Amino acid sequence: MTPKQHKFLAETAETDPFVVVDLDIVEHNYRELKRLLPLARVFYAIKANPEPAIVGRLQKLGSNFDTASIGEINLCLAQGASPDRISFGNTIKKKTDIASAYAKGVRLFAFDSEIELEKLAAAAPGAQVFCRVLMECDGAEWPLSKKFGCSPRMASDLLVKARRMGLDPYGISFHVGSQQTDLGQWDKAVAQVAQMFSVLQEADVDLRMVNLGGGFPARYRSDVPMLEAYAQAITQAMTSHFGNNLPEIIIEPGRGLVGDAGVIQAEVVLISKKDYEDDRRWVYLDIGKFSGLAETMDEAIKYRFVTPRDGGPTGPVSLAGPSCDSADILYEKADYQLPLGLEVGDKILILSAGAYTTTYSSVGFNGFPPLKSYCI
Amino acid sequence: MTPKQHKFLAETAETDPFVVVDLDIVEHNYRELKRLLPLARVFYAIKANPEPAIVGRLQKLGSNFDTASIGEINLCLAQGASPDRISFGNTIKKKTDIASAYAKGVRLFAFDSEIELEKLAAAAPGAQVFCRVLMECDGAEWPLSKKFGCSPRMASDLLVKARRMGLDPYGISFHVGSQQTDLGQWDKAVAQVAQMFSVLQEADVDLRMVNLGGGFPARYRSDVPMLEAYAQAITQAMTSHFGNNLPEIIIEPGRGLVGDAGVIQAEVVLISKKDYEDDRRWVYLDIGKFSGLAETMDEAIKYRFVTPRDGGPTGPVSLAGPSCDSADILYEKADYQLPLGLEVGDKILILSAGAYTTTYSSVGFNGFPPLKSYCI
Repeated sequence: MTPKQHKFLAETAETDPFVVVDLDIVEHNYRELKRLLPLARVFYAIKANPEPAIVGRLQKLGSNFDTASIGEINLCLAQGASPDRISFGNTIKKKTDIASAYAKGVRLFAFDSEIELEKLAAAAPGAQVFCRVLMECDGAEWPLSKKFGCSPRMASDLLVKARRMGLDPYGISFHVGSQQTDLGQWDKAVAQVAQMFSVLQEADVDLRMVNLGGGFPARYRSDVPMLEAYAQAITQAMTSHFGNNLPEIIIEPGRGLVGDAGVIQAEVVLISKKDYEDDRRWVYLDIGKFSGLAETMDEAIKYRFVTPRDGGPTGPVSLAGPSCDSADILYEKADYQLPLGLEVGDKILILSAGAYTTTYSSVGFNGFPPLKSYCI
Repeated sequence: MTPKQHKFLAETAETDPFVVVDLDIVEHNYRELKRLLPLARVFYAIKANPEPAIVGRLQKLGSNFDTASIGEINLCLAQGASPDRISFGNTIKKKTDIASAYAKGVRLFAFDSEIELEKLAAAAPGAQVFCRVLMECDGAEWPLSKKFGCSPRMASDLLVKARRMGLDPYGISFHVGSQQTDLGQWDKAVAQVAQMFSVLQEADVDLRMVNLGGGFPARYRSDVPMLEAYAQAITQAMTSHFGNNLPEIIIEPGRGLVGDAGVIQAEVVLISKKDYEDDRRWVYLDIGKFSGLAETMDEAIKYRFVTPRDGGPTGPVSLAGPSCDSADILYEKADYQLPLGLEVGDKILILSAGAYTTTYSSVGFNGFPPLKSYCI
């Protein structure tokens, strides 16, 4: 937490749960990424936190933007980003949305299938396109699956076809998984991509870009390798497989830019036991899975908590949200401990909560308002 | 689907996904429940679908309301429900919210712990309170867990204590699980509750109410016992364990009133394969887990789909939403089949989608708007 956040928390009269994002931390994270990966173009993955103030700050710093929808594209444009700094990175797009983005000047599009390529050829003639390739991704906390990408050989065929359709086959993207902590995964993936570059060169298709996706970590409960180690692994993988002939590199950090920048303040609503012999307390907060903490799904993301009673003896707890929904449990299996002195009404801080909290909030499940957000 | 819904779907120019709820079906479901369980007071569980038009229609029919928050209480009052028809059924409440509900005239409150009881005694003096008891619930599609309720012996102690604190120990509630299809579960649970009534009578506490919760089904992909069978099981369980001395019965249907009343219209955005040999297609819709279909979590609720190509040959599909989130997969393991003739742009109808769809929608994940809703 930063002094600015401390001050905000000390002075606020807000009683509903909220997240407060320190924009200076976002800026710091951006500058660090640029320093450690000077060759990479940064495309902020807006979906992680679409607060206009965050987009605006990153825009002023020169960031590019990875967008998932027309809504996000409009947000970037409204914050002053020129369309050449916007990638329409969703592989699943309505043709009308492609046409709308193209009309606004967007010229960089993702795809992973033949039908999407046909839509792009029709609605975004001549645009730069990159194909998402399906990679295995062990070691990521938030699991990826087969939803995105196609096999490398299919991708190669589609890139050849893209040129035939009048598009500009620009490069290849992949994603090793959010919170990816196994650095060897990067090497494995880049090796495959370099191989595809060679194959396509023989077909006279000159790819010029590798999109490494996201996967940059925020600090949750478990330690993660430092950003330096990530940057080094990426740089090593790229230079070892591409040599002197480095393509343009795109990275799409979301969590890595905003995760650590946000702190949630919540309140303990109830502490109870289910029976006399239980040594485990149930601690209910005024924030839950449907009002900001969706990433606790399957207890995937393990947040760190700060309470006003820290330092005293602790005991095991299950943590849950305030809604009348039995799925609204944050942690039941993860072995969380909280102070025995914890009381109803205590404020609880949830650290590294700047990413994927506000946006996953429901519109008002159980009549509770969505997570409020402050950028300072 | 009803003729009214058919007509609406035929005439609408809406391109975003939406749900259309036929209020006459809600009314029909309400009347059916009243007919089959004439002794029960119906408390609509607003969280299932808080559209004002639904609350308004049920209010006019004389329904009572089970609410989870001050927001939901205000909604009921705004629709003309008097406070004596409102239950604050959430066992997790801020003291300020209890006081606020009490000030508005609400006099019926749920609890399941000592601390909550203390809050109620302080902020809602003299109110009727009922204790939620922890029941096992095999056979429910949407799993319940230990989040709500306490052990029967703890509940008994707390009800005795409630009277000592100046509250009115009114009854016991339990929930056998949403979509509960094992009718024997009802009998098991009611037996336990009747036993508690006897024990408490010896302590001079006269309970007068049993709250059977929800668990009434909507029709998804698998067949469910008809409402008649549910009503019969409940009636049998109550009469066999309480005899002539039947307490007041409260039921809290949510899904059972509105689930079947809603149809979602969505659109096929993309159809693809991940490699040449795959026989499985990926079908991507413009609605997903974060924009209305949250209950596909762990593939729990299996919706029925209607396409304009039904009748032709089908093949296996994985179904996913439009967001750049790999968790936004609807069905990958459930063996869904869709027509081989299905095409991008086809409208898809999702049946029995009137419950837990609009409310679980995110405020705008990936820049997509929340699920739109029409009540006709």
